[in-house]
Amino acid sequence: LRAEADAGVDPESTPDVGIIMGSDSDLEVMSGAHDALAELGFAEQTDFHDAPDARFTYETYVVSAHRTPELMYAYGETAAARGLDVVIAGAGGKSADLPNMTASIAYPIPVVGVPVQEKSVDSVIGMPTGAPIVAVDAGKSFNAALSAAQILSREHDELRERLVEYHEGLVGGVARDSRDLHD
Amino acid sequence: LRAEADAGVDPESTPDVGIIMGSDSDLEVMSGAHDALAELGFAEQTDFHDAPDARFTYETYVVSAHRTPELMYAYGETAAARGLDVVIAGAGGKSADLPNMTASIAYPIPVVGVPVQEKSVDSVIGMPTGAPIVAVDAGKSFNAALSAAQILSREHDELRERLVEYHEGLVGGVARDSRDLHD
Amino acid sequence: LRAEADAGVDPESTPDVGIIMGSDSDLEVMSGAHDALAELGFAEQTDFHDAPDARFTYETYVVSAHRTPELMYAYGETAAARGLDVVIAGAGGKSADLPNMTASIAYPIPVVGVPVQEKSVDSVIGMPTGAPIVAVDAGKSFNAALSAAQILSREHDELRERLVEYHEGLVGGVARDSRDLHD
Amino acid sequence: LRAEADAGVDPESTPDVGIIMGSDSDLEVMSGAHDALAELGFAEQTDFHDAPDARFTYETYVVSAHRTPELMYAYGETAAARGLDVVIAGAGGKSADLPNMTASIAYPIPVVGVPVQEKSVDSVIGMPTGAPIVAVDAGKSFNAALSAAQILSREHDELRERLVEYHEGLVGGVARDSRDLHD
Amino acid sequence: LRAEADAGVDPESTPDVGIIMGSDSDLEVMSGAHDALAELGFAEQTDFHDAPDARFTYETYVVSAHRTPELMYAYGETAAARGLDVVIAGAGGKSADLPNMTASIAYPIPVVGVPVQEKSVDSVIGMPTGAPIVAVDAGKSFNAALSAAQILSREHDELRERLVEYHEGLVGGVARDSRDLHD
Amino acid sequence: LRAEADAGVDPESTPDVGIIMGSDSDLEVMSGAHDALAELGFAEQTDFHDAPDARFTYETYVVSAHRTPELMYAYGETAAARGLDVVIAGAGGKSADLPNMTASIAYPIPVVGVPVQEKSVDSVIGMPTGAPIVAVDAGKSFNAALSAAQILSREHDELRERLVEYHEGLVGGVARDSRDLHD
Amino acid sequence: LRAEADAGVDPESTPDVGIIMGSDSDLEVMSGAHDALAELGFAEQTDFHDAPDARFTYETYVVSAHRTPELMYAYGETAAARGLDVVIAGAGGKSADLPNMTASIAYPIPVVGVPVQEKSVDSVIGMPTGAPIVAVDAGKSFNAALSAAQILSREHDELRERLVEYHEGLVGGVARDSRDLHD
Amino acid sequence: LRAEADAGVDPESTPDVGIIMGSDSDLEVMSGAHDALAELGFAEQTDFHDAPDARFTYETYVVSAHRTPELMYAYGETAAARGLDVVIAGAGGKSADLPNMTASIAYPIPVVGVPVQEKSVDSVIGMPTGAPIVAVDAGKSFNAALSAAQILSREHDELRERLVEYHEGLVGGVARDSRDLHD
Repeated sequence: LRAEADAGVDPESTPDVGIIMGSDSDLEVMSGAHDALAELGFAEQTDFHDAPDARFTYETYVVSAHRTPELMYAYGETAAARGLDVVIAGAGGKSADLPNMTASIAYPIPVVGVPVQEKSVDSVIGMPTGAPIVAVDAGKSFNAALSAAQILSREHDELRERLVEYHEGLVGGVARDSRDLHD
Repeated sequence: LRAEADAGVDPESTPDVGIIMGSDSDLEVMSGAHDALAELGFAEQTDFHDAPDARFTYETYVVSAHRTPELMYAYGETAAARGLDVVIAGAGGKSADLPNMTASIAYPIPVVGVPVQEKSVDSVIGMPTGAPIVAVDAGKSFNAALSAAQILSREHDELRERLVEYHEGLVGGVARDSRDLHD
Repeated sequence: LRAEADAGVDPESTPDVGIIMGSDSDLEVMSGAHDALAELGFAEQTDFHDAPDARFTYETYVVSAHRTPELMYAYGETAAARGLDVVIAGAGGKSADLPNMTASIAYPIPVVGVPVQEKSVDSVIGMPTGAPIVAVDAGKSFNAALSAAQILSREHDELRERLVEYHEGLVGGVARDSRDLHD
Repeated sequence: LRAEADAGVDPESTPDVGIIMGSDSDLEVMSGAHDALAELGFAEQTDFHDAPDARFTYETYVVSAHRTPELMYAYGETAAARGLDVVIAGAGGKSADLPNMTASIAYPIPVVGVPVQEKSVDSVIGMPTGAPIVAVDAGKSFNAALSAAQILSREHDELRERLVEYHEGLVGGVARDSRDLHD
Repeated sequence: LRAEADAGVDPESTPDVGIIMGSDSDLEVMSGAHDALAELGFAEQTDFHDAPDARFTYETYVVSAHRTPELMYAYGETAAARGLDVVIAGAGGKSADLPNMTASIAYPIPVVGVPVQEKSVDSVIGMPTGAPIVAVDAGKSFNAALSAAQILSREHDELRERLVEYHEGLVGGVARDSRDLHD
Repeated sequence: LRAEADAGVDPESTPDVGIIMGSDSDLEVMSGAHDALAELGFAEQTDFHDAPDARFTYETYVVSAHRTPELMYAYGETAAARGLDVVIAGAGGKSADLPNMTASIAYPIPVVGVPVQEKSVDSVIGMPTGAPIVAVDAGKSFNAALSAAQILSREHDELRERLVEYHEGLVGGVARDSRDLHD
Repeated sequence: LRAEADAGVDPESTPDVGIIMGSDSDLEVMSGAHDALAELGFAEQTDFHDAPDARFTYETYVVSAHRTPELMYAYGETAAARGLDVVIAGAGGKSADLPNMTASIAYPIPVVGVPVQEKSVDSVIGMPTGAPIVAVDAGKSFNAALSAAQILSREHDELRERLVEYHEGLVGGVARDSRDLHD
Repeated sequence: LRAEADAGVDPESTPDVGIIMGSDSDLEVMSGAHDALAELGFAEQTDFHDAPDARFTYETYVVSAHRTPELMYAYGETAAARGLDVVIAGAGGKSADLPNMTASIAYPIPVVGVPVQEKSVDSVIGMPTGAPIVAVDAGKSFNAALSAAQILSREHDELRERLVEYHEGLVGGVARDSRDLHD
């Protein structure tokens, strides 16, 4: 990671969103973020030095706060230099150290914490004054990705439009459900 | 509000952050957001047509989801046209309709929900899939403002620097506390 | 809906009870309201302009507070003009915005909130002072419909009798259960 | 009570709303219902045989489910004959027997349960299927009275207007608070 | 029940323990009380006028606080005259009215409340000062029956011995489990 | 204690009820048991070998499960030999070992557990199947004493009458409160 | 146990860690402690007088606080004389008396409490000031064994190395998971 | 810290116990650890290079996981080299990152986590499998220090004796309290 951070790659070809989780057992919940980003036209970048063509990209890492604290530290510290703009971090147990510590180390990059289970909510959200993190509801990695896109859309009008299009699809779905009820 | 939205004011002279709350009894908790924004050099804009000189500004409104649903609707719907980039919304009871509804209506502008009391946390955070909101911990409007600044800092390097400076001040404070303990 | 509201239909041929829910996934829980109303002799009205013969009727809509805030707004605002007397509103997650917002917008029509899950209870019930809603227990849409009928029965003696008959059936059931235990 | 029930008094001169609570220590919380009814022009009727002139009236009793179960039983059983249309019942501890039992005995008169403390909510709301009660949030006897008036307003247009007027006063208050914030 | 209460039957031939529950759906949980009483040599008495030979006996009734409040009232009021010494009452939902009301009405006969589900605990245990009930843990009707036997054993040495014998069987079981672990 | 147990004192002159608590800081809450027993005519016995004249008596001990496990063990083991008929045991923290362990050791003497604080409820009530204890609500030592008296009243008609008299006093109080409300 | 305690066996041949639980139904959860100790090279000692060759050993007992209080007492009192250095104690219900009482009786031997279920956490951890116990999370007997080994490792460098080796294996696992994600 | 770690100081003159907390506002709660260690004859070491004469010593630092993550990292990483044997770490909010991260980084040194408030308990205790920490109850830093001393006492008989003496003082206190009650 530190090598990548030093590589001085053009920001346009680095991932915009970093998705991290503490264990591959969190992947099932966290894959909602993949779904949402795919829905919005993001491409996954699996090799830092070989960016996909898509304008917006994301990467995914397993980084454990407790089993690999050094790796977590390195990920947070190099996030800015590696060109990330937002980090989505999942937390699997009652101790949500991964999103919390990453929010502190990667600061001032915004971190959206995803409590993987209901019991992680308090710990993800409960940062002390002066140490910001924002959180979504338990298991809602899909919404975390929408929020990440909303953040990026402040700067990128293109994303704003994609978000609006996505929402219009939802409205149509509700109308359809209501009609189906009457049949 | 709708008149302001139609005014076509230059985005540079509109407020960047909108702070709303359901009742003036929430002001004591929500004023933490004012403190944080002031700390980062934001100025309050009390007249939409008369912007302060400061580069970054915010406005504050009392908007009640249940007593004035029409006003809440108008605020959310005109937020983009009025030039807001982020909304910080406080929720005072167990039914956090103000941040939640505003997040839906002002979408895709990101909304940072602030549960004014502990018992508002679940309701603020609990939006359905497809309807994004991000939340901070109960009473932590200060952190909500830092998060809003982090979001704006994606586009504005100047804010990024102010955030880093603020944090360096905190580090110095910890060192001082630790030293004091030994005396 | 607004067209229907303007139609000036004779109140006797409009639905008495409106049942709304945020998603068709709430239908399984909310169908208890259908069961109770059917038990009391209500008929479902699926076409606003074509009332069933039955004296008491109800309608059902899917209306999402977060995906279709405009529709929710329109439903609440036209409820009185469309001839509704009581609204039963289900809420599926931790943020019970549908019953809460509808209670505010359709006011002074009474709204009976149904928390679809246990975790929705606090949010449904937690309205601020001055913004009334009444709630039943999680998942008890059957009881919400009985309560709606109790409300209508203040004006309609016929419903009062049907409610009493229903209850006498329950008493007989308890006696039967007790006897069965002894065999 | 039974004598009053047998008296065959003209319904127009009996109380419309009955307010009961288990102990005079609940009075401080329950007096919110008095405030709301007074706001809507209801008069208190302290002597059953001497009705006030006001069109809408209420009465208040201390009835303990556990210390005076016979009295509670009599109150519920005679409620209809005594001309009551809605009962507001407060519950002070973890065992909300007063609203619950009254809802069962006075059925089909609608009962609005008021949990006097937070810890009474579950018990007030938790009635079994087939035994309806509606509840408001802990301590919100003011809203319970608004809800009672909403129920009565189905039959009485006059009350509907008073409820709307009350609400317009609230809207003005929010506008005032928002303006004050800017000064 | 009232006829049985007036019958003046010899106390030795009336049931010692009354087991009541609000619905036959509670029977699965409440049957633990049957198991414990059988283990201690109690016989079930299914006909009040035809006592089994066994020295200690119990009876079981389905009595619903909300569907059959009159029956519950009659059961509690006649309990003493019908010769019962302890009542075990199950409560199935969040509103534990059956054990609570029975404790008040059958007073001073001791009532052991059994919360059928976890969520019934607060309501069963939460009686106001001056209105005594004792409770066991959720679902532990077996222990409620042991407690009932402990209460009866104050007067009956024979039961005291049976309780001690039962306990010695448990001790042997633990020793066996510990030994099995080592194999 | 063991000496007292061996003394072979006449049961009529030993305390009927033993009250124990883990610390003198629990005394404020536990003194409700003294009040209730005094109300029912019990006398405190402070010297085991010098019984008061009153027919029913109680004693009080500070016995800590964690600081003096040997003393707790001795108290439980000698309870029967020392002539106690019921034990009321208070528990002050989250670990309610005093009532629980005493219930196991003094078995089959019935133990009424009093959670001194709300957070002790789960631990007091949560005994495993086969190890009976009965509990009252947090802080309700007054009710625990009434329950103890109910247990003793199975054998002693005199106590039954005192309990009924006490209750009649309560009924009068409710009537008075209700009348006061109308003035 | 008391015989073993008096046997004066060489400390090197006694078990280092004692694992106790209240019932063999806790074994599934508690076997995590076996797994962790096996991972670190501990051997199980099933016969106190016949020590395995391995340098570090543990033993397992079923000891019930409520069904066999005498046995629990004896186990705690003889723990030091029997050569144990740490005790791991599981608690299966809401009343965690086994770890708590053992911590008090075996004091000053450190006891690591394992709440077998989520609902046991409060009771295990909630010891009064002056009565120390340390606890791990619900169901994490594996971590309790690691903690026990950390405690022993203060004195035994060999264990320190084994703990470090175990951890390095975990780090490798995280790296593998992260790589797998990209394929 | 790193300089101290490299200094190669004789273990006998380094602190045995390290006490850390995230903010000086936690000092009031954490000072219970100071009290307990002082009670057991530990001396505070305020200058790493100038050890007090006492055989057992401790040091105290303010280290914030979120404001000074680098410092926390350095403290954990150098703990072993600086001669610490146990770390007591306090956590002040809902996110207990300080004890958790320190437990991971300082591993295999045992860390005793102290939740400064009730709401920190879940987060302190909730470490994932493979990442051990042990915890005491909220606010019980006094017990955390006793536990730390128990851990050290495995190797140091002198501490074992001091712990036993401390406990005997407690037993005397209970006896006194019990006697006082009778006067």
